[in-house]
Amino acid sequence: MTTRRVGIDVGGTKFLGVVLDEHGTVIDEQRRPTPKGPDAIIDGLVEFVRELRPTAGIGVGVPGLVTRDGVLRAAPNLVDINDFGVGRLLRERLDMAVHVDNDATCAAVAEWQVGAAKDARDAVVVTLGTGIGGGIVAGGALLRGANGFTGEIGHMVVDPNGPLCPCGRNGCWERYASGSGLAMLARQAVRDGRLERVRALVGGAIDEVRGEHVQTAAREGDAQAVVLIDEFARWVALGLVNLANILDPDLFVIGGGLAASGDLYLQPIKQWFGALLYSPSLRPHPSLVVAHFGERAGAVGAALLADVH
Amino acid sequence: MTTRRVGIDVGGTKFLGVVLDEHGTVIDEQRRPTPKGPDAIIDGLVEFVRELRPTAGIGVGVPGLVTRDGVLRAAPNLVDINDFGVGRLLRERLDMAVHVDNDATCAAVAEWQVGAAKDARDAVVVTLGTGIGGGIVAGGALLRGANGFTGEIGHMVVDPNGPLCPCGRNGCWERYASGSGLAMLARQAVRDGRLERVRALVGGAIDEVRGEHVQTAAREGDAQAVVLIDEFARWVALGLVNLANILDPDLFVIGGGLAASGDLYLQPIKQWFGALLYSPSLRPHPSLVVAHFGERAGAVGAALLADVH
Repeated sequence: MTTRRVGIDVGGTKFLGVVLDEHGTVIDEQRRPTPKGPDAIIDGLVEFVRELRPTAGIGVGVPGLVTRDGVLRAAPNLVDINDFGVGRLLRERLDMAVHVDNDATCAAVAEWQVGAAKDARDAVVVTLGTGIGGGIVAGGALLRGANGFTGEIGHMVVDPNGPLCPCGRNGCWERYASGSGLAMLARQAVRDGRLERVRALVGGAIDEVRGEHVQTAAREGDAQAVVLIDEFARWVALGLVNLANILDPDLFVIGGGLAASGDLYLQPIKQWFGALLYSPSLRPHPSLVVAHFGERAGAVGAALLADVH
Repeated sequence: MTTRRVGIDVGGTKFLGVVLDEHGTVIDEQRRPTPKGPDAIIDGLVEFVRELRPTAGIGVGVPGLVTRDGVLRAAPNLVDINDFGVGRLLRERLDMAVHVDNDATCAAVAEWQVGAAKDARDAVVVTLGTGIGGGIVAGGALLRGANGFTGEIGHMVVDPNGPLCPCGRNGCWERYASGSGLAMLARQAVRDGRLERVRALVGGAIDEVRGEHVQTAAREGDAQAVVLIDEFARWVALGLVNLANILDPDLFVIGGGLAASGDLYLQPIKQWFGALLYSPSLRPHPSLVVAHFGERAGAVGAALLADVH
């Protein structure tokens, strides 16, 4: 029987599951929408795991504050409850070993062990999805923090007067620089009479505008969509510059759902990074690359952690 | 002859020099204003070192981007030149070993080795002076970063539309939460007709208002000064919360010039920290303490680094 190591990334909008073989190669990948509410999420995960047919324990990446024993303490983009015992609930239902970790930490494990940050000593993996997650390698070690909560970079406040975040605070970075942020910027632009092509793509239903529509328009060559992506890239770069000032990495790896269209974002982010970093001419700039595993990085890392746990 | 280990913290407004004996006890401390311009700084440091009579090499902490071989690449709050070869220039003039490091890294070394963060695995030392510096201990190691530039936390942008920073960017944290930030908030308050006692203390010369005047008024019990300190504490807490989200430390140590009046700031900072952290009831809060060595932490750490270099 082939070894099937299963990892699942629980995102704000979708489950992304991968199966790795004994060589670590991705041999299967499945997606399904994230159900609403904690019970439905557990039911959905149990069913999803059975479809993916693991031969041993599994790994699950979830967004938010995850304790080392797999309790999701708070997850603004996922569930409206506190202390969601994802690990325990899945173990009871599945009767197998379940490792639960922060989704972006999982992505960092994948990219650092076998991906774009392999052998890096100082790197930050940034997942741009419904929210923003982070995994930090510093001085050759993966940082965990005092409680396992390191890397909640999406809730770095970049504008105290900014829009309300599901976390209850104002102006968090992920309000601007995540997939949700891109959608917010795009809806605002449509309301302001810009982004005509995007308005046409959604048949005028502004609330339906998502990042994908901006990407579609930009790929068609729509100049207004390209300008909006530049505006979005400025917000991404602003947060990356903050992280560079704090952590001085030589590498940023971009994962999460937006990594699938990294070609659209990478160049404008790099340009804004250079414009926003202080004394940019007097220091090396970190490299900025798309995750080797793209938006699958979280799921692959979860599968890798299932093994080492 | 007694051993005299000399460390000097070069601040935006003053040199602070300490002499440690062979037990690491501070046996002398001297201050003088920071001269203007690179030549005057080197002249002043040479003279200052001679007064402090080191028996071996010395350590010097400077604010800004310091390379591992002691070149100050950029220092927005100190000199308006690039690539200031502090280490080389001092070695030539003094004919002794000179270790140059970032000032806040020095403070972190002192507090982590023998001060308030002794044995900490995850701690951030924050120096609130003319600007804001940072030294980060994570996973039981002092972080240096790819270029030695880790901890430039003062240039974390917390409001892209905020006031211009000497670094050339807008809305850096140190525009609000440093000694300069406190002075700026106080001048604005005086202009707005608040802070009458502070206005009286400077004889109406608003441009003369410094943080010390606010402290004096607050210690006298002036309610308006206490409110201003609360406003200032909110800005300090905002940045600390960002760092907590990114690094999940269990300890913050406050050093720098403002540490000398830490009793005025600590309680309001703690209150705002709890108000600004997301899901504050679902996680342990890091401790917040004043540096064991107070505003001398940078100088003490510089002296300690002189030895290990």
